[in-house]
Amino acid sequence: MKAIILAGGSGTRLWPVSRYGLPKQFIKLNGGKSLLCQTVERLAAVVPLKDIFVITNEDYHFHVQEDLKSVSPDIQDNIILEPVGRNTAPAIALVMKYCLEKLKCAKSEVVFICPSDHILEPVEKFARYAKQAEVAAKAGSIVTFGIKPSRPETGYGYIKAGTRIVTCQKSQVKNKKSADSVKPAACESLFANVYKVAHFTEKPDRAIAEKYLKDGNYYWNLGIFAFTIGAMLAEFKAYAPEISRKMGQTFAKMTADFKDIPPISIDYAVMEKSKNTAVLPIDILWSDVGSWDSLPEVIKPDFQGNVKIGDVIAVDTVKTIVMGENRLISTIGLKDLIIVDTPDALLIARRGQAQRVKEIVDMLKERKRKEVEEHTTTYRHWGSYTVLEEGPRYKIKRIVVKPGQKLSHQVHYHRSEHWVIVKGTAKATIGKKSFIVHENESTYVPKSTGHRVGNPGKVPLEIIEVQNGEYVGEDDIVRLDDAYERRRH
Amino acid sequence: MKAIILAGGSGTRLWPVSRYGLPKQFIKLNGGKSLLCQTVERLAAVVPLKDIFVITNEDYHFHVQEDLKSVSPDIQDNIILEPVGRNTAPAIALVMKYCLEKLKCAKSEVVFICPSDHILEPVEKFARYAKQAEVAAKAGSIVTFGIKPSRPETGYGYIKAGTRIVTCQKSQVKNKKSADSVKPAACESLFANVYKVAHFTEKPDRAIAEKYLKDGNYYWNLGIFAFTIGAMLAEFKAYAPEISRKMGQTFAKMTADFKDIPPISIDYAVMEKSKNTAVLPIDILWSDVGSWDSLPEVIKPDFQGNVKIGDVIAVDTVKTIVMGENRLISTIGLKDLIIVDTPDALLIARRGQAQRVKEIVDMLKERKRKEVEEHTTTYRHWGSYTVLEEGPRYKIKRIVVKPGQKLSHQVHYHRSEHWVIVKGTAKATIGKKSFIVHENESTYVPKSTGHRVGNPGKVPLEIIEVQNGEYVGEDDIVRLDDAYERRRH
Repeated sequence: MKAIILAGGSGTRLWPVSRYGLPKQFIKLNGGKSLLCQTVERLAAVVPLKDIFVITNEDYHFHVQEDLKSVSPDIQDNIILEPVGRNTAPAIALVMKYCLEKLKCAKSEVVFICPSDHILEPVEKFARYAKQAEVAAKAGSIVTFGIKPSRPETGYGYIKAGTRIVTCQKSQVKNKKSADSVKPAACESLFANVYKVAHFTEKPDRAIAEKYLKDGNYYWNLGIFAFTIGAMLAEFKAYAPEISRKMGQTFAKMTADFKDIPPISIDYAVMEKSKNTAVLPIDILWSDVGSWDSLPEVIKPDFQGNVKIGDVIAVDTVKTIVMGENRLISTIGLKDLIIVDTPDALLIARRGQAQRVKEIVDMLKERKRKEVEEHTTTYRHWGSYTVLEEGPRYKIKRIVVKPGQKLSHQVHYHRSEHWVIVKGTAKATIGKKSFIVHENESTYVPKSTGHRVGNPGKVPLEIIEVQNGEYVGEDDIVRLDDAYERRRH
Repeated sequence: MKAIILAGGSGTRLWPVSRYGLPKQFIKLNGGKSLLCQTVERLAAVVPLKDIFVITNEDYHFHVQEDLKSVSPDIQDNIILEPVGRNTAPAIALVMKYCLEKLKCAKSEVVFICPSDHILEPVEKFARYAKQAEVAAKAGSIVTFGIKPSRPETGYGYIKAGTRIVTCQKSQVKNKKSADSVKPAACESLFANVYKVAHFTEKPDRAIAEKYLKDGNYYWNLGIFAFTIGAMLAEFKAYAPEISRKMGQTFAKMTADFKDIPPISIDYAVMEKSKNTAVLPIDILWSDVGSWDSLPEVIKPDFQGNVKIGDVIAVDTVKTIVMGENRLISTIGLKDLIIVDTPDALLIARRGQAQRVKEIVDMLKERKRKEVEEHTTTYRHWGSYTVLEEGPRYKIKRIVVKPGQKLSHQVHYHRSEHWVIVKGTAKATIGKKSFIVHENESTYVPKSTGHRVGNPGKVPLEIIEVQNGEYVGEDDIVRLDDAYERRRH
């Protein structure tokens, strides 16, 4: 079985922490591991690490690479790159093509697909369910994970479970109406509860959601799927023929033409139409961390019902979520609030209204505000830079270059740059000269002079860069070559 | 008449904006003028600018100087310096000594004392009341300003008005019980309502405050006084003989010995005991801006009852006070909250509980947190510095030096410094060399090397300083001389 993590989303429901430049899957919510890392580690309990792959797009390539590397350097290149996001159906098609062509998988290989930004606990329980799903998928079904609704949520998709399936690799007993009477003792424990899907319903209204909740036969669709490549190919052929046709090409050609595939979700394209879908109800601690309101599902509140991250002094404060970073946050007499603090943007919302962050994000997009796109720290392949201050004729950045990495060879026409090395050793090329700059030394790049900086050393290089000139916008840059050949640099 | 502003307080009731290093009187609440500047301008409607003086202590000397200069360079030195704060009675004694010795005032001169951090509007009305108080003071009384209570406030002092006084410079009719029958037409309009003080009550409990509110004869004590030097001297002699004795010395000697005077307020030392006190009820818009809760008294709320300063996006938010600076603040579904944001500390409090900021401040003091002492920007005689970032072995500051000013000649033993000039022209002295550094040039100060920087130019000098070394604390400094001879630098 190959486990594939979908990590191309650019959600901003956890704004101001999640932004286009750093979406939810890469966020370290409790200062520890990113949701993507947690997902990788969860899957490592199901399949060998080498069989875990992440599909993402160019913009998030190096974020994924960093996260994978932090789990194990061996899998840092287990990445399938979409040239552009086209929602889940084309992504899953590309994944299958990758498996067939690059990994030489047979059509009987099971692919286990899951989102990169959910919480499922405990891991051992998840692994047992994943094994059950694998068995059911091997037996032919396209298996989804469903979880018992705990509230009449209108933001999720619902799956109605139909008749029970008893699948067994040996007996291949499928879809018997009187399934209960057929109990092959050998496999019963592994896949006790798999049901035919009666139907899918995407985001029902409140009244229907309440009906579903009462009914007891409905499950939330977790967006986790297990299927053999062969089974899914058949469904694509039947219900998404244009995507299916693209899969007739090579992986390289399919990638090159990827932008021409219309975006569509796997649910709309295939799952809702397929007659071969099954649901495995799972009983596990799950959260899609869909808004700040769901944070207490991820981080256990203290005895006052507060979740406090960062430097917080709370007086007479209860049931309040505080997500801080470096600054001191003090609260007095609060109840049922959400406070999320980042270096350049602060959110304060009433609990239960966190999904309205969307309204703020939409306003910011409309006003072309940078706070919805990037953080003050921007991550690049070579490291990161943080804007410390910007004035009318100057900008100050802290630049961190990873060992062995270098920035592109570039020229600025409107600004000169002063570099002070505060940590590590830099190799600077300014004009035609190349030289080494040590900690506590500085150098200067005049306007219109080609320059490049790299870290030839073994520890991260930290530079304070003071830009000076009549214009200090990021777009005053001409790249003479690009060490990474990326669109976004 | 001389108008004296008391500006030595170090209140933190508006923390995190007001801190020890920048107390309330220097705060620009609505981005405009400081409360001190507003006080100076209010008094300028009563007396000529040259007759307005500010008493403060060393720590706030240059803050006061800056504010006075912003009103008029002519009065930037109208400052009476207490070597150390000793509350209002010693301060007023020092003021009187200053008036007698330095300004050559007669004992019949009226002194008008007022706090530096209150709001009184409109100015014209205030000026009319001040003139009334002057006339009453000239006639012999120690006159206080009282305002009709609007709520049973337990945090203020109360004055009970007794019988009416009709004073007139010519007729000198004083303290007649049948005052109403004596109406010299010529002066009636000027000092219609001045009453003997029946008694003062400092901070009554709730029940008493409610009685006072109902009674109708009680007024809040605004801490504004008018008196002739002679009249007040007599009271000091009678009720504060030890302070009175100090006044027998020269101003210089009195200043030198100032620290030996026990701290005591003018209310406790004199006013509550004196039999010569009067109250002038005034009907004016007044606020002591005593907590964030009182902000709507100073800044008119919008149609949703919000006060919004800074970069604020508010969704479905009412009756909320937001005091922002540079960062974006977004709110969703809030009501009755106070949000105060500064670069290094954030306060979020329920409205009506803002006085509990004291609890936060006390905790911070106990933990020796810098956020209660100084802002990220620290003001000095020569200009200011802002800490932009601090890392384990480095610190980055933006330093602004005023034209014609210079920092002290100094040495650091644990850090070297890189200076990049981003605006203006610097005169640097490093070791034995002195030289000019222009905009977009940089220079370097090695460890243990004497250095000084000054601004010989006509525009502010802005330097980005990158400190590097094994210790970058502010106390690694040896001043070889001090351009300002101050204790705190």
